[in-house]
Amino acid sequence: MDNEIKFKDTNVALIGVGLMGGSILKALKSQESRPKSITAFDINNDILAKIERKGLADIATDDAKTALKDADLVVIALYPKLAIEFVKNNANSFKKGCVITDICGVKREIEEGIPSVLPEGVIFVGGHPMAGREHKGFNYSTPDLFLGCKYIITGGEKNAVKLVSEFADIIGANKIVFSSSDKHDEMIAYTSQLPHVLSVAYMLCADARNVEDFSAGSFRDITRVAMINDEMWSELFLENKDKLLEEIRSLKDGLEEIENLIEQEKRDKLRSEMRRAADMREGIMG
Amino acid sequence: MDNEIKFKDTNVALIGVGLMGGSILKALKSQESRPKSITAFDINNDILAKIERKGLADIATDDAKTALKDADLVVIALYPKLAIEFVKNNANSFKKGCVITDICGVKREIEEGIPSVLPEGVIFVGGHPMAGREHKGFNYSTPDLFLGCKYIITGGEKNAVKLVSEFADIIGANKIVFSSSDKHDEMIAYTSQLPHVLSVAYMLCADARNVEDFSAGSFRDITRVAMINDEMWSELFLENKDKLLEEIRSLKDGLEEIENLIEQEKRDKLRSEMRRAADMREGIMG
Repeated sequence: MDNEIKFKDTNVALIGVGLMGGSILKALKSQESRPKSITAFDINNDILAKIERKGLADIATDDAKTALKDADLVVIALYPKLAIEFVKNNANSFKKGCVITDICGVKREIEEGIPSVLPEGVIFVGGHPMAGREHKGFNYSTPDLFLGCKYIITGGEKNAVKLVSEFADIIGANKIVFSSSDKHDEMIAYTSQLPHVLSVAYMLCADARNVEDFSAGSFRDITRVAMINDEMWSELFLENKDKLLEEIRSLKDGLEEIENLIEQEKRDKLRSEMRRAADMREGIMG
Repeated sequence: MDNEIKFKDTNVALIGVGLMGGSILKALKSQESRPKSITAFDINNDILAKIERKGLADIATDDAKTALKDADLVVIALYPKLAIEFVKNNANSFKKGCVITDICGVKREIEEGIPSVLPEGVIFVGGHPMAGREHKGFNYSTPDLFLGCKYIITGGEKNAVKLVSEFADIIGANKIVFSSSDKHDEMIAYTSQLPHVLSVAYMLCADARNVEDFSAGSFRDITRVAMINDEMWSELFLENKDKLLEEIRSLKDGLEEIENLIEQEKRDKLRSEMRRAADMREGIMG
């Protein structure tokens, strides 16, 4: 990609219209800064019909060739393995010089998988908007899903990165974070995957007890992400297995430390650890 | 307490005006249904001055005798050990026939401690409004802290329980839950103390890493209660040590189970455990 291209001059193809893809379409519709055209691709014809009815795309199609023919920016909003497969299976249909980006929550898998099947003259930029919801599917998509989120970009050719950054900005991201895929996967294992593991493990500890009568804010917060999309998260967990296992083990050690402090009634040390945690949280979230 | 007494006919003494006590005063002020009088007791004269300035009580005093002299309902909003000590040290100042209630987050300690120092003719009803905030102190108190909360009552004499239930209702609770102190402490260990332990342990795993750039909703939720009041929670943890340790161990086992499923790539079982957790959460919170 030798020349800089502006988002408003691109034909955009959005591949996959679930929670994330649907929210991208709705975010773009709510913006003044529209691209030249938007084509939405999905294999679910009910969703395509909804997209047409709501005027969320210029073209809604289940034919990949049609979707990719004129696309300057291809946003793939599929789970990681499907994203790689899509690029591989449609290698011949991409327009020469187009930019492909993804939205996957693991990046090493993608950075290894997509470039290896990328046709010549097509540029890839890995991306990850850090936003989500407890529910999945187009019906839960919302134009403000990405409002204020961080958008991680794992690098690529300069002008292509600029274009993806502009796209991120337009759908609502408030900060672009550049990161290696390795660093991304380590940090995400801690900041996002571990809370999901934790929330599931915690929820299952309820057993058959009637916890409802004894639940308040902390219970609600800790269990929110136990409303998990098992198909997606199980894939992400396994694709980031090494990093995630390290984080789970470190958390188990941390729990054991607190367990020991309580067991031995070391109240001063317990309090100083609590203060350290509170200070860290305050430093991060204000 | 042979006769039923209505909240509107009582002189109320509130003992301790921190986050909880302050929120009780503000909740009562915002209600049409006021008691005959409200006296606030605290040892902090700055707070007493604020209470007077805001008209939150008829009398604001640092003298326990004055506070208790005419009180029909004494609401003790102190940490557990201090609550027991307060009753013990002021045993002779309570009005005969008055009802004492507390708001402590552990109930076995209280149910053993207070009755043993209770003067004759004074009735105790254990209570626990399940509400709180990440911040402590009067300055963070708010009239809607108890809005919609569950209010646990661990039993007592019938008319006294009625009076405390009416008080709970007036400050905003939407459900009175009756429970033994043993059951309360077991359930609270799981629904409230464990999330706090968990949140602190999780937060400390961040180490020196820059997590801010990689944090989104799940991180925010899981770390909220790491903003912990170390003085109060360390006391509560130690007072409920046996029950809490059991919950921590059960959570560690649960984490280990998920760790093993990921390590052995047992995706089907991983997914079914996730679905089970999601179903449980949905069953509880809708």
